[in-house]
Amino acid sequence: MSFDQPVDRRSVGATKWDLLASAIGVEAADALPMWVADMDFPPGEFLQRAVTGVRDGGFYGYFSTLPHFQQAVAGWMADRHGWQADPGHVIATHGLGNAIAMCLQTYTAPGDEIAILTPVYHEFAAKVRRNRREVRELPLAIGADRRFALDFERWEGMLSGRERMLVLSSPHNPAGRIWTPDEQRALADFCARHGLLLLCDEIHHDLVFPGERHVPFPVAVPDAMDRTVILGAASKTFNIAGARTGYAIIPDEGLRTRFAACVTALDIQPNRFGVEMTRAAYSPEGAAWVDALVDYLAGNARTFAEGVARIPGLAAMPMQSTYLAWVDFAPLGLSREELQKRVLGNARIGPSPGPPFGTGGELAMRFNLGTRRAHVDEAVARLQRAFADL
Amino acid sequence: MSFDQPVDRRSVGATKWDLLASAIGVEAADALPMWVADMDFPPGEFLQRAVTGVRDGGFYGYFSTLPHFQQAVAGWMADRHGWQADPGHVIATHGLGNAIAMCLQTYTAPGDEIAILTPVYHEFAAKVRRNRREVRELPLAIGADRRFALDFERWEGMLSGRERMLVLSSPHNPAGRIWTPDEQRALADFCARHGLLLLCDEIHHDLVFPGERHVPFPVAVPDAMDRTVILGAASKTFNIAGARTGYAIIPDEGLRTRFAACVTALDIQPNRFGVEMTRAAYSPEGAAWVDALVDYLAGNARTFAEGVARIPGLAAMPMQSTYLAWVDFAPLGLSREELQKRVLGNARIGPSPGPPFGTGGELAMRFNLGTRRAHVDEAVARLQRAFADL
Ligand SMILES: Cc1ncc(COP(=O)(O)O)c(C=O)c1O
Ligand SMILES: Cc1ncc(COP(=O)(O)O)c(C=O)c1O
Repeated sequence: MSFDQPVDRRSVGATKWDLLASAIGVEAADALPMWVADMDFPPGEFLQRAVTGVRDGGFYGYFSTLPHFQQAVAGWMADRHGWQADPGHVIATHGLGNAIAMCLQTYTAPGDEIAILTPVYHEFAAKVRRNRREVRELPLAIGADRRFALDFERWEGMLSGRERMLVLSSPHNPAGRIWTPDEQRALADFCARHGLLLLCDEIHHDLVFPGERHVPFPVAVPDAMDRTVILGAASKTFNIAGARTGYAIIPDEGLRTRFAACVTALDIQPNRFGVEMTRAAYSPEGAAWVDALVDYLAGNARTFAEGVARIPGLAAMPMQSTYLAWVDFAPLGLSREELQKRVLGNARIGPSPGPPFGTGGELAMRFNLGTRRAHVDEAVARLQRAFADL
Repeated sequence: MSFDQPVDRRSVGATKWDLLASAIGVEAADALPMWVADMDFPPGEFLQRAVTGVRDGGFYGYFSTLPHFQQAVAGWMADRHGWQADPGHVIATHGLGNAIAMCLQTYTAPGDEIAILTPVYHEFAAKVRRNRREVRELPLAIGADRRFALDFERWEGMLSGRERMLVLSSPHNPAGRIWTPDEQRALADFCARHGLLLLCDEIHHDLVFPGERHVPFPVAVPDAMDRTVILGAASKTFNIAGARTGYAIIPDEGLRTRFAACVTALDIQPNRFGVEMTRAAYSPEGAAWVDALVDYLAGNARTFAEGVARIPGLAAMPMQSTYLAWVDFAPLGLSREELQKRVLGNARIGPSPGPPFGTGGELAMRFNLGTRRAHVDEAVARLQRAFADL
């Protein structure tokens, strides 16, 4: 587990590197890509062994190991998250974006509104729109602790009554805010009050910093399961998004049956590699790897926050989990164009632009810290230089 | 390329073996599974190298090699099938069943009727029903050559007028009938006459026996592209269905745009392994492997046909491609129960039952010959014994 080990992702087809110039607009030879949400770390040995095992088995045909996948997911929930999920409630999906889309199609109709708490993972809104539903933005407040905060009072006045679902990122992407059990209960109440199904995307659940604690929604609010769908995956935690494998866990039989019908109608069956890699990841060895990883990521977050704090007027939002730092540049009073010139041009850093994250992201950027410390140090130094004149 | 090499698939999670007892009802220790459509052959070395390459790259994150996949597919169509497909017309799907489902959802509405030529791959009807469309069976005739034959005259009288699409297996599963260019033109005319979109599933296009020739639909009927969607995959040819990767090729811009919108809304992106294995397969080395494979499969088909012909009253349908033999037991005058007792019980063979293939499959069974010759010999011997008393 040498997260400091230099890794070259320039020749392996990595989107983060290959599309940096065309999608983000950073062309420099020494560019630091900090957008696409995967990590520049070598894979755990258990993953390498899983791939080797599939290869050496010499069999790539129709396979029947899905029950083992369900068991592995339920086992991980029990061991790591204290949630006794029923393996039979686990439904494999073709990645988590696919799971979100199928939930939208299963539980809502075209024209329905879908609530999201912005700024949030940009694909929530994109998926809602691509499925011809409408986005209802509920902007997060900024608490006294400078973190995102729920803002029910304001939201009550913002609903149209046509909302059918709330899609939650828990922990929250960006900035890794962990919703407390109390907050989750309040969210459940809000959903109940307004007749919303809660789609609780817990893909970041493992990336919790030492000293912090994420409580799965079904543990925090067990009596809300009749209107809750949980999504998860090994893909963020173990950096295997390219294997396109995730899952929904749906305790409620009625909700589960409807989702399963959608999955079956679309013939969404996971691929062999995603299944075997997930099984290998959800193991004691995988757990030890994650423990070391979150230690390292917490260090990266500290380094980044301290460095950004030295730029007058700026602060990275304090993080509790994930590797997705959030910096709102609004206090600087600069235009978006000026910010981009400084960050993308001067600093040669390619973060995710804030506006697609919705209201609150207008002058923000998301920085991916899933990279070696030396890169974070370098990014911080470049940012400091790029704003040194202020 | 040693297709005779013994391969043990009892401990690798192969559906064909693991679910033989529960799904087909054959429990014997020396059972011969001949149902699920994958092959009991070791993978080509090029596939093993592709998997090793992905593993050694140590990168499983978001990847950007889809254009290479599109190029590889177009290259294979040009080199092997004489079809100059535009790489930009290739859209990756999550397996072919998934592609069929998305076509149903894109181009038809619930309640619409979908025509299929029966007996045919049982999943066509299953997918139509699961997507709440209705099946319009158009039964194939049996020609003077004892092969399936198109039967337009009869079909004209069988349509309700609510049909919107015809799903074609070309070559045809079961029995590998190759539709001639003339027949394909007649099918295109039929579709045009009745306002049907043609969904042409060419997944078996490579498994063509020496001396036979399959002409891709776009080459046979280039002027029907405004109502045609072509489906393909490396999965049958190279035995990699577990990688869940296929593709649609849609020359018509309007049809392509609609399908792409469905794919994007559902976030169907191929997985890294499926992409790299397909690229490795669609190569000169892959082509040489297929040449050897079809030679071997043609030999299996001969062995099987000769053996079955020695059972009085029985004949396997003559094959031109695929490894999916079709035997209609109707001439024997036995009940389905009696047939199953003899084939599943006495002979300990697990073929695919005929009824799910639709009209014409009532007393038939499909035998998967994608296995080593010794197994085919053994199956034939057992079948002969099981019917020796007639
Ligand atoms: C909250 C959240 N959900 C889903 C995803 C995407 O998952 P997938 O790549 O499996 O579609 C991400 C990726 O960053 C994410 O942050
Ligand atoms: C004609 C035909 N189409 C599609 C498929 C299934 O493809 P997939 O496994 O990719 O869903 C098969 C499998 O046997 C088939 O014969």
